[in-house]
Amino acid sequence: MQAENKVPLYESERIDDLLTHNMKIIQSREVFCFSLDAVLLARFASVPKRGRVMDLCTGNGAIPLIMSTRSNEAVFEGLEIQPRLYDMARRNVLINGLESRITMHHGDVKEAVSRFGHGAFDLITCNPPYMPAASGEQNLNEHYAIARHEILLNLEDVIRVSSQLAKNGGKIALVHRATRLIDIVTLMRQYGIEPKRMRFVHPKRDAEPNIVLIEGMRGGKPELRIQPPLIVYEAEEVYCDELQEVYYGKRDSLA
Amino acid sequence: MQAENKVPLYESERIDDLLTHNMKIIQSREVFCFSLDAVLLARFASVPKRGRVMDLCTGNGAIPLIMSTRSNEAVFEGLEIQPRLYDMARRNVLINGLESRITMHHGDVKEAVSRFGHGAFDLITCNPPYMPAASGEQNLNEHYAIARHEILLNLEDVIRVSSQLAKNGGKIALVHRATRLIDIVTLMRQYGIEPKRMRFVHPKRDAEPNIVLIEGMRGGKPELRIQPPLIVYEAEEVYCDELQEVYYGKRDSLA
Repeated sequence: MQAENKVPLYESERIDDLLTHNMKIIQSREVFCFSLDAVLLARFASVPKRGRVMDLCTGNGAIPLIMSTRSNEAVFEGLEIQPRLYDMARRNVLINGLESRITMHHGDVKEAVSRFGHGAFDLITCNPPYMPAASGEQNLNEHYAIARHEILLNLEDVIRVSSQLAKNGGKIALVHRATRLIDIVTLMRQYGIEPKRMRFVHPKRDAEPNIVLIEGMRGGKPELRIQPPLIVYEAEEVYCDELQEVYYGKRDSLA
Repeated sequence: MQAENKVPLYESERIDDLLTHNMKIIQSREVFCFSLDAVLLARFASVPKRGRVMDLCTGNGAIPLIMSTRSNEAVFEGLEIQPRLYDMARRNVLINGLESRITMHHGDVKEAVSRFGHGAFDLITCNPPYMPAASGEQNLNEHYAIARHEILLNLEDVIRVSSQLAKNGGKIALVHRATRLIDIVTLMRQYGIEPKRMRFVHPKRDAEPNIVLIEGMRGGKPELRIQPPLIVYEAEEVYCDELQEVYYGKRDSLA
């Protein structure tokens, strides 16, 4: 990776493997690390062959980085409100030499429609904050708090803005806690997005799912497909075959 | 079964084992046979310790018969619009000597609220017609057509009436095709029923689910629990352990 030398690293940051296609990612435990949920969403979403893809709340940019490996002609963008994370995402594009494919933007999701226009994207992805603003778990530093809690953005904001940014027939793919499923699907319908595909992620076989992957289509017709469950750990600390294939590059999609 | 002798059987009818608690059930391939879906719903629903339970579209009454084994003090009712099925359901109560626990009614679900009153029940169950009225599969005899297609009753009718019949805090449990999930949950919310518990039924491991079991609470707070998947066949023609236990009486509930 020649590009690595040109990209500055700041205190507390490190370069990790993104575990696919020899990609690298700058992270910092002090402010943000990408999670398995981001990897799952990047593999689950219906990435178009060509067209324009936007990842809201992109953090350090893991989702656009991974999605870029799934399409040769689509272009990818990410939007992040926290300057420190936005800067990390921007450098993650450089470090992988993907400036021609991925553009990172600094700003507020709630201003995205006036900035990018109605119907500008073929796919919107988002791994939003999962927890209510005032929940008890909120004893974190500010960076983590904003990424995890609905402080600056709630679920309705994400779905409303996604619907406005997507073109008619465009897709909106989210990852969220399974307990929020009813809110997600009713808000999607309220904003003209028909849920079309869903997959539950179970920490292990015969456990309840903790995470749901869901994709809707703007203006789509009702008919939901529920995919087989994704079991993360087949045995203790052993990823299931499907995730091993994702991580070791033999498989590009969870669709 | 002493009662069997007193209950008439008509042409084409036969007495089958209900496969639990030595119960018997009159069926006829000409008009209606209960399905695995009915058994699953009867095991999935939160049957109250005491109180009043109504099964809409009860057919030959399999669901109240099975639910009656799960509670000693609750009373069960069934409502069926087809006279021939209603009469079968009535005789199925007699044949099992359950007249003190189960009452069958003949009539239209759409008139149930004026007949039974608002908020009369602690639990409403329904295994409704799955298919649209005008779907291509409708080359059946009239009895099967009414039981399987939304000819006399559609999903919105079922959910609206269930909401009116249930007391505040009461439960509504349905079984339906998984492809209709979004309609079910949005209609539930529209009529004041919060989906609280859901379970997907997969024909086999790693297959997509074809059936969903879902229970909501009238006036409940949002927070969905999704149970582990129910895999019907672990191997060809071999029910999974959980269903074997249900059928052989070692287990009463799928909750």
